[in-house]
Amino acid sequence: MQENHIFQDTIVAVATPHGMGGLAVARVSGPQALDLVAMRWQGAPLPAMSSHSAHLGQVLDSAGNVLDQVVLTVFRAPHSFTGEDVVEVSCHGSTWIQQQLLTTLIDAGCRLAGPGEFTRRAFANGRMDLSQAEAVADLIASQSATAHRVAMNQMRGRFSGELGRLRERLLHFVALIELELDFGEEDVTFADRSSLVLLAQEIQTVVHRLAHSFHAGNAIKNGLPVAIVGATNAGKSSLLNALLGDDRALVSDIHGTTRDVIEDTITLDGTLFRLIDTAGLRQSKDVIERMGMERSIAKMEQAQIVLWVIDSTETASEVERHAAMIVPHCTDKQLIAVFNKADLNAAPEVTLPPEVTTIHMSAHREADVERLRQLMVRVAALPTVDENAVIVTNVRHYEALLRAGQAIGRVVDGLQSGVSGDLVSQDIRECLHHLGEITGEITTDAILGEIFAHFCIGK
Amino acid sequence: MQENHIFQDTIVAVATPHGMGGLAVARVSGPQALDLVAMRWQGAPLPAMSSHSAHLGQVLDSAGNVLDQVVLTVFRAPHSFTGEDVVEVSCHGSTWIQQQLLTTLIDAGCRLAGPGEFTRRAFANGRMDLSQAEAVADLIASQSATAHRVAMNQMRGRFSGELGRLRERLLHFVALIELELDFGEEDVTFADRSSLVLLAQEIQTVVHRLAHSFHAGNAIKNGLPVAIVGATNAGKSSLLNALLGDDRALVSDIHGTTRDVIEDTITLDGTLFRLIDTAGLRQSKDVIERMGMERSIAKMEQAQIVLWVIDSTETASEVERHAAMIVPHCTDKQLIAVFNKADLNAAPEVTLPPEVTTIHMSAHREADVERLRQLMVRVAALPTVDENAVIVTNVRHYEALLRAGQAIGRVVDGLQSGVSGDLVSQDIRECLHHLGEITGEITTDAILGEIFAHFCIGK
Repeated sequence: MQENHIFQDTIVAVATPHGMGGLAVARVSGPQALDLVAMRWQGAPLPAMSSHSAHLGQVLDSAGNVLDQVVLTVFRAPHSFTGEDVVEVSCHGSTWIQQQLLTTLIDAGCRLAGPGEFTRRAFANGRMDLSQAEAVADLIASQSATAHRVAMNQMRGRFSGELGRLRERLLHFVALIELELDFGEEDVTFADRSSLVLLAQEIQTVVHRLAHSFHAGNAIKNGLPVAIVGATNAGKSSLLNALLGDDRALVSDIHGTTRDVIEDTITLDGTLFRLIDTAGLRQSKDVIERMGMERSIAKMEQAQIVLWVIDSTETASEVERHAAMIVPHCTDKQLIAVFNKADLNAAPEVTLPPEVTTIHMSAHREADVERLRQLMVRVAALPTVDENAVIVTNVRHYEALLRAGQAIGRVVDGLQSGVSGDLVSQDIRECLHHLGEITGEITTDAILGEIFAHFCIGK
Repeated sequence: MQENHIFQDTIVAVATPHGMGGLAVARVSGPQALDLVAMRWQGAPLPAMSSHSAHLGQVLDSAGNVLDQVVLTVFRAPHSFTGEDVVEVSCHGSTWIQQQLLTTLIDAGCRLAGPGEFTRRAFANGRMDLSQAEAVADLIASQSATAHRVAMNQMRGRFSGELGRLRERLLHFVALIELELDFGEEDVTFADRSSLVLLAQEIQTVVHRLAHSFHAGNAIKNGLPVAIVGATNAGKSSLLNALLGDDRALVSDIHGTTRDVIEDTITLDGTLFRLIDTAGLRQSKDVIERMGMERSIAKMEQAQIVLWVIDSTETASEVERHAAMIVPHCTDKQLIAVFNKADLNAAPEVTLPPEVTTIHMSAHREADVERLRQLMVRVAALPTVDENAVIVTNVRHYEALLRAGQAIGRVVDGLQSGVSGDLVSQDIRECLHHLGEITGEITTDAILGEIFAHFCIGK
């Protein structure tokens, strides 16, 4: 259920990234957006401004002094991001001006927006459904071509469209069943059971396909987890540094705001790889010493790709002993045995299981490192996401799809075993409910609060 | 001399702060701004857009796929910041989208803008003079109410206006003198020498006042330098931390990009204080141990305010010995003797010179720290800057004013000692030249390059 009430207050936030820049944009949205900005504005009269027009003028502080020369852009309801009257104030990007601009607008009567509050209003005003709103956050956080494309598709409504078509067919389906129930005593059959089974199975297939896409979708969105394991001194740190290469600076830029929790990531051929727990690896010699193989195995549990680094000076029996420890943990993973320091020594002659991919290289030769990167992309084997692909990247959507799949599964079983129409109808309604959770037809304040709390302020 | 040539190429840069946010704005400026953006645009036709209008649509990547939903705002020459055709593209603020947006526009034919290149074009196209252009950078960097107001006044042309009036009077002056020279043989005197002397003296006074304001202006812009000195263990670090207080987070935000060189700053009552070399102070116990009093004295040289921290458990003779080392170095500074740990011990009974301000406090009591902050504001005694105040904050302007002052001084001397008109005229021309350097009537590519190199990209 959409919130469907008109917001009384007018919210404001800086929408551009935190910090100093050439310019910054504060966004004001709500029924009084124009009136409240007008109280701090010197320039053409705001009430007369047409929608989608930009105006040069001056913003005043609460004492009436000129705070900055700014450009106002007015978007009138409903033709704005939120569906409300919106004024965007583009000011000089000093942090001081940004703070003062917020202060003067708050003094005028605006309220500082909470995280995601603009997008929440856009959802409440029917400008987008819930999965599209969630895609806005994903879009902003996307770090690779693929993650970006998936989020764009979701924001542009492809996922919603596919769910909408499913819901329509289910509604038609349940209408037929429930019509029968209305004529319960008369034992009428409007719905041909065998064609209903086919339809339910088809819907089940689509729901399963969408749910299944979450495994790739999660890797696309959060990065494919890669563990670098191996004996002490095998060269794990150098390999990590070589892999990160010039990308490092970019990576730390991207994660500037969450440095306390983030892992190192690299984007190779449009795929994001997340290197697990590598910060610890590079913290100090001591930590590395203490870790050893036990720690490595724990890291492998979280990984989809395991880079097992082997010093080429290790003896064949050492390597085989390590293999016995590592390989059994990698049945559902891609294991790459990296014979490092190939420039110094010939690799030990060992026979590894056929499912292990092997590469001989030196972390100090860029060409070798590039070969390893290509190998990682190849074993990752993420699906190519084209313009129209619908891939589920959101764990909330995944869980709703799983529950929808269970419900439609019971429908198929029920139809085949001939259970009564009211039970079938109840399962279809449950399937509809879970699909509706994704797009926000079915929702609660608690769910909305949880979703939008993870947005940035100003969006 | 303004550059006065039409720029052939079209430049692009992200103008909003670096990093991830709700939205980011890329700015495109140049003769082909509309044509090049049109190559990557899906929406209303760009050539038909009127100036100052905003349009929702989609930006395509170089392969023709939809990169993002954006809002374009068009500013047509000459009604734009640069005076050229400008298109601002407001996109979702992921770092990935920002990079791709730049890439696709560069592929279309834009060139990535250098630092300050938009403002340099605004200057070249006569949208602002050089001191106004420099004020844009100051405005963006301003961290206090006063610094902001001074920069705003400069950007709005008050400084330029004052210089313009000076130049006008000098030009009238030199015209009279040079008219005499034209009639050289005839010994005509158009200009009454005594009223010329009065005029030159008046101009000299204004130039001196402006040059003199730089001492306050520099403190306003760069912060008033404060050294915290004192014996080891007197509590310098705790005092520093107490002074920084909750402001710390904000401070590191502001300086996020230049953390390697920056000092800690605090803004008290609208005045920026710069705490010299404090990073070293807090680096490690070892560093603190090695510094001692010698290091403190070196730090004092750069300071305008010295906080001399005294542990109340020090004996009177120790304090007096330190006073003998410190006080002689502070003749041109404000010296505050901070008797710290007043909660633990009574201060030693010492007689300090009358120019030393004394405070008894504990760095652990917020009320005490606040008293110290107020004391710092009081001894700083920076002038109140009202809406119309013209204060020089730029060392380049200061130097030009000094040279202009020397030239006008020679004019006064020359008129009084009756030197020939051509020498007086030459000195007036030199004074005009130096004033013209400030507003950019007189400039070179090298000077412009130096000035705009310190701007951020996108401005």
